[in-house]
Amino acid sequence: MRVVISIGGSVLAPELDARRVEGHASVVENLAREGCEIGAVVGGGGVARDYIGAARDLGANEVQLDQIGIDVTRINARLLIAALGPRVDPKVAHDYEEAGDAIRRGDISVMGGVMPGQTTDAVAAALAEYVDADLLVYGTSVNGVYSSDPSADDGAEKYDELSASELVDVIAPMSRDAGASAPVDLLAAKLIERSKVRTIVLDGTDPGRIERAVLSGDHDGTNIVP
Amino acid sequence: MRVVISIGGSVLAPELDARRVEGHASVVENLAREGCEIGAVVGGGGVARDYIGAARDLGANEVQLDQIGIDVTRINARLLIAALGPRVDPKVAHDYEEAGDAIRRGDISVMGGVMPGQTTDAVAAALAEYVDADLLVYGTSVNGVYSSDPSADDGAEKYDELSASELVDVIAPMSRDAGASAPVDLLAAKLIERSKVRTIVLDGTDPGRIERAVLSGDHDGTNIVP
Amino acid sequence: MRVVISIGGSVLAPELDARRVEGHASVVENLAREGCEIGAVVGGGGVARDYIGAARDLGANEVQLDQIGIDVTRINARLLIAALGPRVDPKVAHDYEEAGDAIRRGDISVMGGVMPGQTTDAVAAALAEYVDADLLVYGTSVNGVYSSDPSADDGAEKYDELSASELVDVIAPMSRDAGASAPVDLLAAKLIERSKVRTIVLDGTDPGRIERAVLSGDHDGTNIVP
Amino acid sequence: MRVVISIGGSVLAPELDARRVEGHASVVENLAREGCEIGAVVGGGGVARDYIGAARDLGANEVQLDQIGIDVTRINARLLIAALGPRVDPKVAHDYEEAGDAIRRGDISVMGGVMPGQTTDAVAAALAEYVDADLLVYGTSVNGVYSSDPSADDGAEKYDELSASELVDVIAPMSRDAGASAPVDLLAAKLIERSKVRTIVLDGTDPGRIERAVLSGDHDGTNIVP
Amino acid sequence: MRVVISIGGSVLAPELDARRVEGHASVVENLAREGCEIGAVVGGGGVARDYIGAARDLGANEVQLDQIGIDVTRINARLLIAALGPRVDPKVAHDYEEAGDAIRRGDISVMGGVMPGQTTDAVAAALAEYVDADLLVYGTSVNGVYSSDPSADDGAEKYDELSASELVDVIAPMSRDAGASAPVDLLAAKLIERSKVRTIVLDGTDPGRIERAVLSGDHDGTNIVP
Amino acid sequence: MRVVISIGGSVLAPELDARRVEGHASVVENLAREGCEIGAVVGGGGVARDYIGAARDLGANEVQLDQIGIDVTRINARLLIAALGPRVDPKVAHDYEEAGDAIRRGDISVMGGVMPGQTTDAVAAALAEYVDADLLVYGTSVNGVYSSDPSADDGAEKYDELSASELVDVIAPMSRDAGASAPVDLLAAKLIERSKVRTIVLDGTDPGRIERAVLSGDHDGTNIVP
Repeated sequence: MRVVISIGGSVLAPELDARRVEGHASVVENLAREGCEIGAVVGGGGVARDYIGAARDLGANEVQLDQIGIDVTRINARLLIAALGPRVDPKVAHDYEEAGDAIRRGDISVMGGVMPGQTTDAVAAALAEYVDADLLVYGTSVNGVYSSDPSADDGAEKYDELSASELVDVIAPMSRDAGASAPVDLLAAKLIERSKVRTIVLDGTDPGRIERAVLSGDHDGTNIVP
Repeated sequence: MRVVISIGGSVLAPELDARRVEGHASVVENLAREGCEIGAVVGGGGVARDYIGAARDLGANEVQLDQIGIDVTRINARLLIAALGPRVDPKVAHDYEEAGDAIRRGDISVMGGVMPGQTTDAVAAALAEYVDADLLVYGTSVNGVYSSDPSADDGAEKYDELSASELVDVIAPMSRDAGASAPVDLLAAKLIERSKVRTIVLDGTDPGRIERAVLSGDHDGTNIVP
Repeated sequence: MRVVISIGGSVLAPELDARRVEGHASVVENLAREGCEIGAVVGGGGVARDYIGAARDLGANEVQLDQIGIDVTRINARLLIAALGPRVDPKVAHDYEEAGDAIRRGDISVMGGVMPGQTTDAVAAALAEYVDADLLVYGTSVNGVYSSDPSADDGAEKYDELSASELVDVIAPMSRDAGASAPVDLLAAKLIERSKVRTIVLDGTDPGRIERAVLSGDHDGTNIVP
Repeated sequence: MRVVISIGGSVLAPELDARRVEGHASVVENLAREGCEIGAVVGGGGVARDYIGAARDLGANEVQLDQIGIDVTRINARLLIAALGPRVDPKVAHDYEEAGDAIRRGDISVMGGVMPGQTTDAVAAALAEYVDADLLVYGTSVNGVYSSDPSADDGAEKYDELSASELVDVIAPMSRDAGASAPVDLLAAKLIERSKVRTIVLDGTDPGRIERAVLSGDHDGTNIVP
Repeated sequence: MRVVISIGGSVLAPELDARRVEGHASVVENLAREGCEIGAVVGGGGVARDYIGAARDLGANEVQLDQIGIDVTRINARLLIAALGPRVDPKVAHDYEEAGDAIRRGDISVMGGVMPGQTTDAVAAALAEYVDADLLVYGTSVNGVYSSDPSADDGAEKYDELSASELVDVIAPMSRDAGASAPVDLLAAKLIERSKVRTIVLDGTDPGRIERAVLSGDHDGTNIVP
Repeated sequence: MRVVISIGGSVLAPELDARRVEGHASVVENLAREGCEIGAVVGGGGVARDYIGAARDLGANEVQLDQIGIDVTRINARLLIAALGPRVDPKVAHDYEEAGDAIRRGDISVMGGVMPGQTTDAVAAALAEYVDADLLVYGTSVNGVYSSDPSADDGAEKYDELSASELVDVIAPMSRDAGASAPVDLLAAKLIERSKVRTIVLDGTDPGRIERAVLSGDHDGTNIVP
């Protein structure tokens, strides 16, 4: 089974903590040991937020801020690589061809962001499409896709299952404001719809949940079905 | 005035025709002569459509199709460069830094696509943001933004002016189906909203309209105001 | 057996046609299945001709025209890659080291053009030399090497066998005019002479002929012997 | 006057603070306005230290740690670039040729680290050598070169002036232990000796001191004379 | 006037000698001072010959030998750059776009070889074509184009003037054997024919001859006229 | 066992001689056959010295001289590659990631220099650190580490064994003058100290000594122990 795992910045590195990275590395290694081919895409987390805040104060434009964010995701990717054993490609993949190449040769590949204007959510969806993944898992800080922002709306309902186009419909209005409330961003949702890759959105704070979801399909999040 | 001009594939190269490319080059040169700093972003057109069709028949996935599309846009960029005089950077810019660098040094810069998952609409918006453009012009095959697809819905109404967030609201449902009906794609609309760059969407079939819109603000399309 | 196959643009893509590409891909895969290590070099075909015509009208110089031609050959290479199964390196090789590296690791490698001033004929000969190929096959639109242009001269005689230096002698005067009449170009002929790689020039319109020539040595074209 | 300014990580970014970066940017701009050609090299600071600590806990080797450090210095370089006006090359220079090229064209160039095994101290010295700088200034967290570590040894004496080879002699034993006590590292000292560039080591916490030292030669640090 | 100067390896560096390089640098600088835009292409000389001999003994194939030759030409290019003043682009151009870009910005650009299978003769012709040069000068070790090899055939006649297609006709048979006797190689001749750039072949041992030929048209070599 | 072998320029190529290169290649192949994973780093030798001398006469600065030296080491690396059989990565590795990647995939990797300011001694130490080598061997022109320069001081004593920090202490003063007398340079010594890789310094003129030292630990040089 070929799996792309997106580990959000708020999950991997809300602040720098070797233990948390180690937990995720250990899940990735277990999955590889069980025979999965794995591409991992990591987000930026707290350091990205701090740098972007400082750069915005200094007058950087949005593309420059995106580039700083990408740089930080790639350092986070180095951390995850350091924590993974000999089966990981030691280079951070900078585009889909590099990642796909490493996976073809039997390595685990780790990416961060790729280009301004795309979040790592979208990178994970594009990588899943590029390598014809069987499964795409988003480990986020909320436990699935809700009808509205659960932290703001008590009546928000969690979906157990959505089609990819329903996902786009749900996400589109959320991403209208601030954007923070959508568990995956709109471009990612549209790529999932296009690629028809089976997708799970779940709470990745405890990395063990990702492992169980991949191996047994057992999870409390939301299934996105083609 | 710093201007980014997006010349859609259906406008620049519905099929290959040196005269049409020349017309667009001549507008770009006139604008440069009037003192504009210019970044041009060109689309894929008919050749891209043919190649993508053939590659899809051969089993290429969507990312591979995007890459073929990007390659074709870059050949189209070479055509536009060939038609431009000595003020153009003879290299096709492959990312925003290269384009921005050329513009800073006083050259006209021409780009095609950049990365899978992003249309050249989005590239133009990101470039406008990166170079802090004063104006972004989309030369498309329809003459502005409509409330719905004018070719399918007789009651479709054209907007003379929209805010950037209204643009996103109008575009979002259109991009739900086939996607062909939106004059600019959703990611582009969201980047315009983020960057607050003044934007015009107009019919670029006659390149003279782009020139007039930039120099005098006179056009029949839609103004997107920050 | 290590084989380099040159598939001329007029053979692979006189116009875009997925079926024709598929036919060539299937031959390459059969050969790989029979144990051949394969490098394939593809030409530009009709799209290249159209683009180069348009660019020439726009005032592009010959080097710029060559670059456009190279770009198109590389898109054609993407088509062939899309049609090939998992044994192909999904990246188009941009130089001999990349192609040689992929072949060493057991992949089929596909290239287009490399540099202005060299046709894909010459690229195929240089690749054959670089990887110490046992056999180089040119699939062209004529069925071998003739003493003069068979479409212009009724008395043109086909050679069954030539030494590499005889090939150079035959090709040199043909490439004096228009150049269209030589089945492989002069630089390629000189590289074949230098490298002493056994070479076959045959009609590649029916890709099955390439397969038979490689596997059984059976063909109606011309053998170039060291 | 061509000047290379090394802004240590502990000076530019002990922790992330837009104001501090702004102060250094403003000095660089003032110097450029006074006619100086400027290359700036920035260090890693607190974020580098945190990431390196985490990566070491995860089993990264020293070269991997260096690479993470380099990545962070380059993000810091982006911050400084964001704070500088239109005269800065917006790209972070990744090697001496890129930086030298930008400076030749009249831009301010900003670099971080270059390669594992070299600190940004050494990068600044190599850049000064490469561009034949008239002056190299190290803005560090101590106010000059001492005979021993002033924070550990009350009898440490500050040098007002040293020859470059005396500098090497002073630095060599300091860099034997922990390495933290030397104001510039040994490789940097040896490059200064080799290049014979006039050098000042001073306390850069207040960026105004760097400006005064460059413009008037007035400072409380240590002069290294060829 | 835009001029491309090819300085053969046997002329620039039969063996390493700083004085000889300096002589050529001084001519290039004089020409630049007179208002010429200049691209210089240098050959490999004695060091290339020695390395290629050793590599051939070790079993390297012809493409590997070419790559070693290219590497040496690029070191020779570094020597020439070192000898040129501030108007030279300090980077060795690795392809035509880099060289063309430097020349457009007012720099002298220096190249060596580009790709296996092409001599620096051909590189100079391609560069002349790419930058639309007014004049291409080959400084070789013989004083023009002869009807046959003057060192072997007492009846060899020197041409004062040849058309580009006559040049190809003269060169073609010479390049049949050993290849050493042709003053420029066949691919170069064909590129000159294609590009229609005015060309001079002369004895470059005394660099002053190149200067006079460019500035006054006065020389004892052979004029190749379009 | 993973081994990094540094073959000094004065050992591999005091002057160009295919036989000497062949001798070293044969040792590397024997070691690979015995199961060693091998990274080889080669120096510049006589050609580097000649080029650097000429460039210095022409006014090149030290960074430019270093770059010329690096270029020559990489040509020497091509020679060694040509002499090695099919188990070598045919590309010269330009950084530690490339070399490490090749070694991970089972190839022998060959490097020359990497960056100005670092000798190939330091490159070998950094590569050993990067790939977590079990052993680092310096094949130099002297037979070990001495208390002072044996060619200048009759009382110089050879060490059979040193700790890495003792090595730094011994090397530091030697590298104060001319630098020629130290068998490995100071930066290399400090990297060895940091990485704790077991290291042997021996006379590599006869390559068989390197083979015996790796396979049996038997040698007349100096052991550097962590």
